[in-house]
Amino acid sequence: MSGPAGHKSPRRWFLYEQVADNITRLIERGTYRPGDRIPSVRQLSQRHGISISTVLQAYYLLEDRGLIEARPQSGYYVRAHLPSALPEPSISTPVLDPTQVNVQDLAMRMLRDTMNPHLLQLGAAIPHPDLLATRKLNRIMASIARHAAPESSLYEFPPGWEPLRVQIAQRALHSGCELAPDDIVITSGCVEAMDLCLRAVCRPGDTVAIESPIYYGILQDLESLRLRALEIPTHPRYGINLEALRFAIDHTPVRACLVISNFNNPLGSCIPDEHKKELVTLLAQHDIPLIENDIYGELYFSEHRPTVAKAYDRKGLVMLCSSFSKDLAPGYRVGWAVPGRFKSTVEWLKFTSSVATATLPQWAIAEFISSGGYEHHLRRIRRAYAERIARLTQAIERYFPAGTKVTRPGGGFVLWVELPESVDSLELYGMALNIGITLAPGLLFSANQGYRHFVRLNAAYWSDQAERAVQQLGELILELAR
Amino acid sequence: MSGPAGHKSPRRWFLYEQVADNITRLIERGTYRPGDRIPSVRQLSQRHGISISTVLQAYYLLEDRGLIEARPQSGYYVRAHLPSALPEPSISTPVLDPTQVNVQDLAMRMLRDTMNPHLLQLGAAIPHPDLLATRKLNRIMASIARHAAPESSLYEFPPGWEPLRVQIAQRALHSGCELAPDDIVITSGCVEAMDLCLRAVCRPGDTVAIESPIYYGILQDLESLRLRALEIPTHPRYGINLEALRFAIDHTPVRACLVISNFNNPLGSCIPDEHKKELVTLLAQHDIPLIENDIYGELYFSEHRPTVAKAYDRKGLVMLCSSFSKDLAPGYRVGWAVPGRFKSTVEWLKFTSSVATATLPQWAIAEFISSGGYEHHLRRIRRAYAERIARLTQAIERYFPAGTKVTRPGGGFVLWVELPESVDSLELYGMALNIGITLAPGLLFSANQGYRHFVRLNAAYWSDQAERAVQQLGELILELAR
Repeated sequence: MSGPAGHKSPRRWFLYEQVADNITRLIERGTYRPGDRIPSVRQLSQRHGISISTVLQAYYLLEDRGLIEARPQSGYYVRAHLPSALPEPSISTPVLDPTQVNVQDLAMRMLRDTMNPHLLQLGAAIPHPDLLATRKLNRIMASIARHAAPESSLYEFPPGWEPLRVQIAQRALHSGCELAPDDIVITSGCVEAMDLCLRAVCRPGDTVAIESPIYYGILQDLESLRLRALEIPTHPRYGINLEALRFAIDHTPVRACLVISNFNNPLGSCIPDEHKKELVTLLAQHDIPLIENDIYGELYFSEHRPTVAKAYDRKGLVMLCSSFSKDLAPGYRVGWAVPGRFKSTVEWLKFTSSVATATLPQWAIAEFISSGGYEHHLRRIRRAYAERIARLTQAIERYFPAGTKVTRPGGGFVLWVELPESVDSLELYGMALNIGITLAPGLLFSANQGYRHFVRLNAAYWSDQAERAVQQLGELILELAR
Repeated sequence: MSGPAGHKSPRRWFLYEQVADNITRLIERGTYRPGDRIPSVRQLSQRHGISISTVLQAYYLLEDRGLIEARPQSGYYVRAHLPSALPEPSISTPVLDPTQVNVQDLAMRMLRDTMNPHLLQLGAAIPHPDLLATRKLNRIMASIARHAAPESSLYEFPPGWEPLRVQIAQRALHSGCELAPDDIVITSGCVEAMDLCLRAVCRPGDTVAIESPIYYGILQDLESLRLRALEIPTHPRYGINLEALRFAIDHTPVRACLVISNFNNPLGSCIPDEHKKELVTLLAQHDIPLIENDIYGELYFSEHRPTVAKAYDRKGLVMLCSSFSKDLAPGYRVGWAVPGRFKSTVEWLKFTSSVATATLPQWAIAEFISSGGYEHHLRRIRRAYAERIARLTQAIERYFPAGTKVTRPGGGFVLWVELPESVDSLELYGMALNIGITLAPGLLFSANQGYRHFVRLNAAYWSDQAERAVQQLGELILELAR
């Protein structure tokens, strides 16, 4: 037993208890975890200029409190089983009031829920780990990291690793684009590419014409850049409606247009070649840049890869954005922009806002593509996703009530589902979370929070449990539709 | 020999020549490089819907042109020695007109010059590869990549990898900060951290008070965000002048303040503890957020790590930003923000603008720190940089003309040098490039392009050649000073 001794002066007594309280707080807040070594007595004494004996008294007190334990010849450690170590709270299930919903919080929560292994992932549009090339790609990464020169940890300044840009330029030929490596700027994923392109051509207050519905991350980036979203009617199979876009341009000062040209998220729509050509021509007539997101372009279910609108660009106005995040390795954070005539601005913005993209992931992906591994991998996952989309569609047909409508995407891995009009999908979202299922409520996909009776479902995590989850969702929907 | 045969129809003749011309262009622009395999005859035929024999004719023509060669059983390859393969042009040396300088281009050029092994690197503030822990860190990366679960290639959504945040929180104690892992948001380097913090608290048109001179990347990010820089006089040893800042706040609506608190780039100044406290108190009185850049904080030359202003933050107004880019691995692109009361906004902006930071680099760095390797590495490089700064200072004293002034940094690896007033350092920059030396001209470090007779020199690349380079610079300066 140790503790405050009656004969100490009040000041010293106060000091060591204060030290103990500080460390208790650090343990409670998780800065020191069970099993972590806390600073040695000497370190703490030097850092705070207090005597060795004061620190020792503090540590004795912490031992008494059951928070730390001494290990001979090694130091003091946070105890593995803290006296207060209750199980962590499970997912909270707040009542979501549709009139007060904060879409930012909702989006961030859906992200965090992707890391919860107890939830069935029908929500965020994340690829399934089994359909990424993690093992092969990581093996290349390991080999490169083991043998790389010291330069491998230096900055890879914009426009980014040249051999990777060569590979991207070669692959662009499949989508009808003749690119030189110098046309390309490597970014940390497709979202950064779009963000930089928007910053390059828009000023705060400007209006951007977009497809509707559209991936909520794009809406939120527009919001964070203080840009206005002009939502253009969009066909579930053929994408942005050109007549409506023409009308909008004639009546509103549109600064830029942004589309997910191939397998739009959430619609799965794919703009036909002739429409792409017309879209590029229409915008060129008004000198309006087109930001083209092609992130799902490689995940086609038919024989041929769809072209990109960039293929029809004659004035350098199309800014193509993509990445390897949906088909290869989201965690590698490697994407690219082909910004046409705005290239030097995008390159400069990349430098001013994040300096460079991580070096080793660029090297590994370049090597994976040039070895032929990427193409091989894509062939496998295209088939798998086509099948998962088909299975999910069948399950919806089977279990969802009459009146349900569902998209027929030609690629990608999400479905956009229209429920009976009386169903509030935000309410459905809350009820589904209660039984361990996440989904993406429709209101996220529009700036004015329309699409209340729509949901987006992710087919990537298809499984027998997912089928049961769809059945349960069907029951909840029936309940809500009454 | 093969080639167009006279009896072909004009249309077919045209088509195969067109195909050959397309491929020639792709080779000339670098999409296909010497040694690359070009698409097989079958692939090209399928992709463009033209006959096998047309493609074959095109390939024969390309062979005739000396551009490609057939390899038995393997396909067609771009020839290793193209007939037009002249050596690449060396660094161009345009005459830089000081009245028309484009600082964006100048900054981007300095970046690109860091990748030129023929240049002596006294320009950009990049660490020396020998003083990074590349080999050890890459070895950890290799081991992790080889054994990691499939999840290692998934998104690591904001706030980022928790074990890394735990390590950062523990290390923060050395700089006087009590942080919980949940206070921290992982970013792609310190620049992204600052960019997100600025976006969180400022609107376009707002004014940000900054030290002057200051790292040009910060000035350019302010410009790209349409923020106004209010340059506050700054002491070469003690950093931002608090009287001047107080005056500025009293007379201008200042939305935020940004300082490099420890070893300012380019000054090397370090704000003393008492000033840090006063700075935080002053800003808190006016509810002005302080964005604190501590990227050089670990590179101190004395016994003790300087504290951070964040240590004195009581209102959650200090937004601490840092990274591992100056002392460990810039190419890993791992940094962090501690945004205080603005945390959820910063997290959301991270998601909307780049989704996440690369996963494996976070894992590797967390492991390197917890193994003790980082602290060990820091001890080595602190000594090395202190020595390089001392050597560069001595060389400047020896070779630069009378009237030269130089800073005395207590950490980091750059020196800020004031030359005789008649010397235009932009002119010096051009002349130095001519003889293979880069340096950072002073005008980059101020929004109004002052500091014309200053240069920043990077001591990280110190060597015998660097000593000779300083001697040569001395001669050029003498010439310009006449």
